[in-house]
Amino acid sequence: MRVGFPATVDSTLLDLLPTGIELIPLNDGLDHEIEIDVWIPDPYPTRALRIWPHLKGVRLILSLMAGTDWITDKAGPDVTVCNARAAHNVSTAEWTISAILAMLKQFPLFLGLQRSADWRGRKEATVGYERITGDARHLHPPVMLEELTGKRVLLVGYGAIGTEIERMLAPFHVDLVRVARRPRIEPLVHSVKHFDQLLPDAEIIILILPLNDASRGLVGPRQLALMRQGALLVNAARGAIVQTEALLAALNEGRIRAALDVTHPEPLPHDHPLWRCPNLLITPHVAGSSPQFAPRAMKVAAEELKRYLNGEPLQNVVQYAGE
Amino acid sequence: MRVGFPATVDSTLLDLLPTGIELIPLNDGLDHEIEIDVWIPDPYPTRALRIWPHLKGVRLILSLMAGTDWITDKAGPDVTVCNARAAHNVSTAEWTISAILAMLKQFPLFLGLQRSADWRGRKEATVGYERITGDARHLHPPVMLEELTGKRVLLVGYGAIGTEIERMLAPFHVDLVRVARRPRIEPLVHSVKHFDQLLPDAEIIILILPLNDASRGLVGPRQLALMRQGALLVNAARGAIVQTEALLAALNEGRIRAALDVTHPEPLPHDHPLWRCPNLLITPHVAGSSPQFAPRAMKVAAEELKRYLNGEPLQNVVQYAGE
Repeated sequence: MRVGFPATVDSTLLDLLPTGIELIPLNDGLDHEIEIDVWIPDPYPTRALRIWPHLKGVRLILSLMAGTDWITDKAGPDVTVCNARAAHNVSTAEWTISAILAMLKQFPLFLGLQRSADWRGRKEATVGYERITGDARHLHPPVMLEELTGKRVLLVGYGAIGTEIERMLAPFHVDLVRVARRPRIEPLVHSVKHFDQLLPDAEIIILILPLNDASRGLVGPRQLALMRQGALLVNAARGAIVQTEALLAALNEGRIRAALDVTHPEPLPHDHPLWRCPNLLITPHVAGSSPQFAPRAMKVAAEELKRYLNGEPLQNVVQYAGE
Repeated sequence: MRVGFPATVDSTLLDLLPTGIELIPLNDGLDHEIEIDVWIPDPYPTRALRIWPHLKGVRLILSLMAGTDWITDKAGPDVTVCNARAAHNVSTAEWTISAILAMLKQFPLFLGLQRSADWRGRKEATVGYERITGDARHLHPPVMLEELTGKRVLLVGYGAIGTEIERMLAPFHVDLVRVARRPRIEPLVHSVKHFDQLLPDAEIIILILPLNDASRGLVGPRQLALMRQGALLVNAARGAIVQTEALLAALNEGRIRAALDVTHPEPLPHDHPLWRCPNLLITPHVAGSSPQFAPRAMKVAAEELKRYLNGEPLQNVVQYAGE
């Protein structure tokens, strides 16, 4: 059994892989055909795709990332694709909580004040809060931050990361409504067919569902218009789930807030107008990153490889050969 | 019973106060003596202190804030001082979690990249991570963010807000060590006497204890030197608990990280060097702010006032008359 892996992987992590296999390091600059049975691609899709045309005989792809949309179409009917779903759960769920809190606590504004050494500028936080939420009560002391506690959250996607997000939201006693492609009773998960109906009530909308034909462009002009004034849209999934032009308009009109780890297009070009929208936090597709990620992902791949060697059923199949 | 209150308070909140009292609105520009029995000061100490010299006969002060250090010395032996501890708990604990996550997820760096529309600059996150933590493994994919999950946290102060912080940290399975002035067995709370010994092991140090003679300057050059490389110091308490000069040095040397909602001096002057330190998040004393705060604080004051009218023991006494 020949297992190709990215030569860039920390060599100590290879000790996690089972014995009885032949390890084939794949260099970034690979320029000739190479025969392998199992491929562990580079975690960066652009690098992995440069190597892909040179690989022959691949029957199993063990992705180190959660997202596999970059390879599933290309893999073809003879190849089984597995992801490393567990490796990203904690870090991506943490990013989601972090992004929500950063927006509710107006950290983007306060970091601007810090840069200009302006303590008294905190008055702007009240102006910003009142404008985006539409709260015109002018309370004293003036409101500058919001609480996550008690907020109404619409969680769109209820896979491994979605359930982690729910777990991390627990201390904040949010009013959580779950939506997924596959509805369930216990716990109650609504069908994504009812997405539009559930939007007007949500204060925070979290996107954490895979990109596929059903989810592409799910959030468009109609959905953004259904969101309440000041709703916070959080995308920790894939950029193309949101229609960028419609999001741009909603942000520039001061209708909603957003926190995005993913964009469409991606990387976001330097001259793209999304960079300059108000009430927006962008991080450059980093949510899954953590020091724990590489060891965790390699453990998932190693476990899957053991099962494959022993003829046992695989655990994280995204696409079976022959489907 | 004459109850003075800030004229700026939203009038609907006055409905929360018990009947059978005489409500005396106190204007910000008050310039003559006025006789009252109970004082609900403006939530902003500077405003409240302008009014204080004109007040005669005050026997009870019902602060709408958690901190009362600005008035306890001035109040004198004939006055009982209560705070509104419960009103700030959730918002201040939420700020603490938010600030920790924002630092671990490098949001200050990413907001800088967003401002300069620079997606590819995310490489700087790896440089910053490796430099501040001293992690020289150069993992692939490169590490950009850290996880809160599993971190070793030293919680200094275990009052109402401290216990809320612990509750909100629960989903992250942190390794929590508690320190307070008064040691306890269940749950285990160490005496602040052992603070120095506990410092070297902590990855995150949270200050959430009252300012008093025992806590003033608690974190000085010795304590900062005991912290591990890249430790994150979070101050949600009072600025003077940390010795500013020593903190400045530790930050500028790249030894530690910090997130501060409070500083010493405060407000931080425009030309203060703290503004320009690396690995630092400053918010201008806003942690307690939330739309829920004013109603909650007034409810606490109203409940205390009812007890006072009925001769029942008060619940949130910070300083008794005669002590």
